[in-house]
Amino acid sequence: MSPTDPSATREHEQLIARTVAAIRPLDATATEAAAGRQGTLTKPPGALGRLEDLSIRIAGITGSPRPRLERRLIVVAAGDHGVAARGVSAYPQEVTAQMVLNFLHGGAAINVLAQHAGARVRVVDAGVLAETPEDPALIRLRLGPGTNDIAEGPAMTRADALAAVAAGIELYARERDAEGIDIVGCGEMGIGNSTSAAAIIAAVTGRPPRAVTGRGTGVDDERFEQKIRAIEQALEVNRPDASDGIDVLRTVGGFEIGVLAGIYLAAAADGAPAVLDGLISTAAALVAVALSPEAGPRLIASHRSAEPGHAAALEHLRLEPLIDLGMRLGEGSGAALGISLCVAACRVLDEMATFEEAGVSDSDDAVEPEP
Amino acid sequence: MSPTDPSATREHEQLIARTVAAIRPLDATATEAAAGRQGTLTKPPGALGRLEDLSIRIAGITGSPRPRLERRLIVVAAGDHGVAARGVSAYPQEVTAQMVLNFLHGGAAINVLAQHAGARVRVVDAGVLAETPEDPALIRLRLGPGTNDIAEGPAMTRADALAAVAAGIELYARERDAEGIDIVGCGEMGIGNSTSAAAIIAAVTGRPPRAVTGRGTGVDDERFEQKIRAIEQALEVNRPDASDGIDVLRTVGGFEIGVLAGIYLAAAADGAPAVLDGLISTAAALVAVALSPEAGPRLIASHRSAEPGHAAALEHLRLEPLIDLGMRLGEGSGAALGISLCVAACRVLDEMATFEEAGVSDSDDAVEPEP
Repeated sequence: MSPTDPSATREHEQLIARTVAAIRPLDATATEAAAGRQGTLTKPPGALGRLEDLSIRIAGITGSPRPRLERRLIVVAAGDHGVAARGVSAYPQEVTAQMVLNFLHGGAAINVLAQHAGARVRVVDAGVLAETPEDPALIRLRLGPGTNDIAEGPAMTRADALAAVAAGIELYARERDAEGIDIVGCGEMGIGNSTSAAAIIAAVTGRPPRAVTGRGTGVDDERFEQKIRAIEQALEVNRPDASDGIDVLRTVGGFEIGVLAGIYLAAAADGAPAVLDGLISTAAALVAVALSPEAGPRLIASHRSAEPGHAAALEHLRLEPLIDLGMRLGEGSGAALGISLCVAACRVLDEMATFEEAGVSDSDDAVEPEP
Repeated sequence: MSPTDPSATREHEQLIARTVAAIRPLDATATEAAAGRQGTLTKPPGALGRLEDLSIRIAGITGSPRPRLERRLIVVAAGDHGVAARGVSAYPQEVTAQMVLNFLHGGAAINVLAQHAGARVRVVDAGVLAETPEDPALIRLRLGPGTNDIAEGPAMTRADALAAVAAGIELYARERDAEGIDIVGCGEMGIGNSTSAAAIIAAVTGRPPRAVTGRGTGVDDERFEQKIRAIEQALEVNRPDASDGIDVLRTVGGFEIGVLAGIYLAAAADGAPAVLDGLISTAAALVAVALSPEAGPRLIASHRSAEPGHAAALEHLRLEPLIDLGMRLGEGSGAALGISLCVAACRVLDEMATFEEAGVSDSDDAVEPEP
């Protein structure tokens, strides 16, 4: 299953390099046009606060002064993690595959929240340990039977890491060609993956593991200490090179994390805003931004997770989340709410009347204050 | 136009008293059932954070363990304020009527955001100074030609204040009978009404005017100082009785504020969640809760406005807003986003699969941590 063919690895490297090369700075003309239009709409300037800023940034990302976010995609990438055998999660590893079925049957939180946001969901088996069904609704990449235990050695080979990122880029391209993508949200599922994500965040931000480790699905004190030990060991054994996104992914990452990193790069190259979810999808963004710093301003942080490492990762990315509701589920649940806010922001920019169109007096005609 | 007929006033008093008497504590059975169901859904307990709490509270408000919020209403009540003549706003007073037309034509922010939230908008002329059109889409209450200048004396008579609250109650009943109301958001428009709202907040919370006064539509330093002086004078001249909601409304309120207070009471009596918007709609909630403390837990705070008085009012109401995006427009713009989150929260509660339905293992089967 694992792509060890050297020519395939070369192709993956080239695809990633081409994608990174296609990522441009934000479009200044569209940004200015959107900001100018916001000033003419029938409301006091700035009265919609960050909703206005959001619409202006999306204009810069898309290159359109009045972006319409009609074709909305949420990718939920699932993968297993060897480190789960250490008891770092409150749930058994088989839950990863069981939740994949739940996603396919529409019973998970992300199914409900994506429908609420008017987004289609694509479920990806990036590397689930158990067999997953051959279902046309499931994108079976199966890059490996879960990762190796990062506390003992690298999560995967460098070839696997390149294959995972390339698979995310290819997945994005297929989805765009088939149904179009105006905005994409990134979610994930994987028992043990908050351990991998915290290791990535510690490696990239330089913060100590204890400061960026949370209780994930809700572990008790014993499991929490075991989780911190596993991350400390993973960093010591693997010594990830923080300046090399592929090395971070190879040493302490996961297959689903690599796929999401690829999607961020592809979306950035394509001019579609990519919406982060919580801890794990934001760790994937750290991998993507290590590969392409210019992808950073093209990402949108949806929510602030209750996981402590999330704030550290967002700070590193210089992103300010839109909402803070104490969520810590993953799956793309926060990204779905974020997409809904992006849509609202862009609809305001596009659909509101201007002062001139509506015949409303502007502030120049105000009554003078009494002396 | 003003209802000075003593028998009408008696009827208004009785309607308000009957409505207040019908407001019950939250339904404990529905609250428990919703909380129990949240614990069985396919996610770690509490992983959706405040979205879970929100669904549980809406269950308590509606009395339904799985509330569906399908029929969504946003009321935008407009009214003029005599105090506007003092130059407390960045916009001339004619903008109130102009914006009513903009609401009717669908060009305002609230039109766009209500459509985004799947809510219908009802525009109310509660007491606009300029003539408004006879349009079937406009609810013309016209309780008075704007209020009197609160810096000189009471905003309105006690009979007017009772009539405004009663009109809100009646409006709610008509809307519910005609099209149904599962959730209602309260917005407003009125040049000068952030001055009236700050006066209400100062009167009810006991905070000094300067601490609860903001720049509304965006006034300069001179207008800002004039605004604070007007509020100080209004409190000194009128000495509102903070324990009597009708007296607060009479002395320093507004017609649109009274109508919204009536809607809060009617929604509380009817078991529909009522969603606050920003400064002015929250000042109206202070009036409603002064009339019925039991209405308080039936209100939902949508967002934290950039206006400084808003936080003080929310604290007094013991409400924590869902979002904080630096918005300060009014019209119900924040309430629309809040309604969308309420809908999302209730859909999660109602539509997600349970562990049993989905055949997903629960946390009892987790791997034990390594010794």
